[in-house]
Amino acid sequence: MIFSMHQKTMAGIIQDVQRAVATSSTIPILSGILVTTKKDQIILTATDLEIGIESRGEGEITEEGSIVLPAQHFSSIIRELPAEMISFKLEEDQSLKINCLRSEYRIKGYNPDEFPTLPQIQDGTHFTMEQPRLKNIVKEIRFAASTDENQPFLHGALLNSVEGKMEIVATDTYRLACRRFSLGTGDELADVEVIIPLKTLQELDRLLNPEEGDVDITLKGNHLLFSFPPLTITSRLKEGQFPNYHQVIPEEFSTSCVAKRSELLQAVRRAALIAREDSNTIEFRFGEGELTLKTRDSKIGQAHEVVGIEREGPEVNAAFTADYILDVLKVIEQEKVSINLDGSEGPCVIRGIKDLDFTYVIMPIRD
Amino acid sequence: MIFSMHQKTMAGIIQDVQRAVATSSTIPILSGILVTTKKDQIILTATDLEIGIESRGEGEITEEGSIVLPAQHFSSIIRELPAEMISFKLEEDQSLKINCLRSEYRIKGYNPDEFPTLPQIQDGTHFTMEQPRLKNIVKEIRFAASTDENQPFLHGALLNSVEGKMEIVATDTYRLACRRFSLGTGDELADVEVIIPLKTLQELDRLLNPEEGDVDITLKGNHLLFSFPPLTITSRLKEGQFPNYHQVIPEEFSTSCVAKRSELLQAVRRAALIAREDSNTIEFRFGEGELTLKTRDSKIGQAHEVVGIEREGPEVNAAFTADYILDVLKVIEQEKVSINLDGSEGPCVIRGIKDLDFTYVIMPIRD
Repeated sequence: MIFSMHQKTMAGIIQDVQRAVATSSTIPILSGILVTTKKDQIILTATDLEIGIESRGEGEITEEGSIVLPAQHFSSIIRELPAEMISFKLEEDQSLKINCLRSEYRIKGYNPDEFPTLPQIQDGTHFTMEQPRLKNIVKEIRFAASTDENQPFLHGALLNSVEGKMEIVATDTYRLACRRFSLGTGDELADVEVIIPLKTLQELDRLLNPEEGDVDITLKGNHLLFSFPPLTITSRLKEGQFPNYHQVIPEEFSTSCVAKRSELLQAVRRAALIAREDSNTIEFRFGEGELTLKTRDSKIGQAHEVVGIEREGPEVNAAFTADYILDVLKVIEQEKVSINLDGSEGPCVIRGIKDLDFTYVIMPIRD
Repeated sequence: MIFSMHQKTMAGIIQDVQRAVATSSTIPILSGILVTTKKDQIILTATDLEIGIESRGEGEITEEGSIVLPAQHFSSIIRELPAEMISFKLEEDQSLKINCLRSEYRIKGYNPDEFPTLPQIQDGTHFTMEQPRLKNIVKEIRFAASTDENQPFLHGALLNSVEGKMEIVATDTYRLACRRFSLGTGDELADVEVIIPLKTLQELDRLLNPEEGDVDITLKGNHLLFSFPPLTITSRLKEGQFPNYHQVIPEEFSTSCVAKRSELLQAVRRAALIAREDSNTIEFRFGEGELTLKTRDSKIGQAHEVVGIEREGPEVNAAFTADYILDVLKVIEQEKVSINLDGSEGPCVIRGIKDLDFTYVIMPIRD
């Protein structure tokens, strides 16, 4: 294998794929990146067997071939080279020689035949979305997923077809975020009910372009493929039964309030500084035109915040975990949010006021 | 105590003093910041008994007083408040009430009478320097100090008067950095020989203004005072006998080379990526017009870098610890550096070529 490629191009595609490299695998080759050539393209692939990321860039290929290189060293050397053309040559001892101006490096590689091939997903259930839209949807729900790997089916998000629409839902059992959305008219709306791992959601959030372009999504068996050139993400799906989430989303409320999102976010962020010292709890009093936040720690002191609200229904007092309120206020993009309650102990629903397709459910803390 | 101050002013002076707060003291009050009023100024003080930092800002004082507040909570609450005027009122229970727009906080304080007073240093040996100059001098030498607290007199830098000039020197016994400098004509040049703690050097580097203004330095007993309004830093001095460093700085060399600093820095930085995997050693061959850097790790691979040099004297091969070479190349500001050697095993001296008052000595690694 002999090829040349600009340092900036190579550094960019390494960065794209590197997060899929296994960080704690017992299989040494999974700590590597597969470098391979195809026509005028250099293709990099990394996988931890759960997620696989492939990216590519143009270069000048003199002789085709492939090699697996230890990700960390390959990445750090390329990153430190000058922004110039780099020549790569695979030597007979399976090391890659890297030349750039007056620098010459050799990195020992692994046999590419031993690198796991990503599943080839061509047919299957297929649909298309705009990248910024999918990026936004993922951001809206992924924070609510369980971070506990021992809860496999909560350590991700359910993608579910419901009444001709799609829903994506994440919950750690303490709170739940759900986004309902439509697909394009030409797309299939077959029955879909799969759990996407949290790591895949994180990589989608990181890699999807917030500006433009479509992403093609293909589902087949227990794999999901996201294709948005030059990138593809292949994800194994989680097995297990996701909780019946529709039954925990209430439809009627005794009290509904509207507040300015940024004002509420700032107030909760400050009150949380005191709350975190103790039980991480803030008391919310939805009063007449005013929402009062209170928290008290016997050692540190106390916080008292007032935020203007419009309220329908009776006054309510309810206590919430500070960070669970913060999380959702950070992802809602609308200027105003509605907070809907059913007494002090019923589930509370928070939404952007002009966006009924997003739902965040959180349980108040009982005394 | 009743006063008001703008959020930005208060946040700024908290940031100035906060690094002097003791992080692991058994004396609870040392985790606090003393807030006190004087005429139209609010003064903040923090100390860990080794270093003390005081800073101040203007505010409107209605009633004088003082209180010690837990640094972390005070800092985080002020930082999160809106950029508006804040009112402060000391309550009878020794808590400080903080009001800003519709936010109200109370933080429990400590008795200010129990806060240690910083030593008052008025007379003593006195001299003045420009802040950017002192900042630069500190940056040039502090990286060579020992980071090991168990080597008290190496865990800092020696400030020494030598032949009518001053020298500041730091060494961890593996390498040594020394800066010679003159004081203003009006200043006393009494015998000075004191060891400034590393933490004081770090805080000087952080707090000195790189743009303008003088710093007044006063030495009395085992304390040193740096005054650059609105800041003062009071530092206890280290006790112990600093090594006789003049005897390790060679004056004659068999080989002298000149290289471009940035080119050499980049090459060493890349070669270090391989070197760090093994012994952290890079082999330097000072050849004819070319310096060749080589490093090899049996598992990872190898690096080979070439940097243009001008050489006087015979060819030399010598091996150095990668990071010890990097450290000095990062702080020298001149375009070209001289590397002066006395064979493969004699001490090596690195300087900016037009600046003989700065000296960096490093020992080659023997086979």
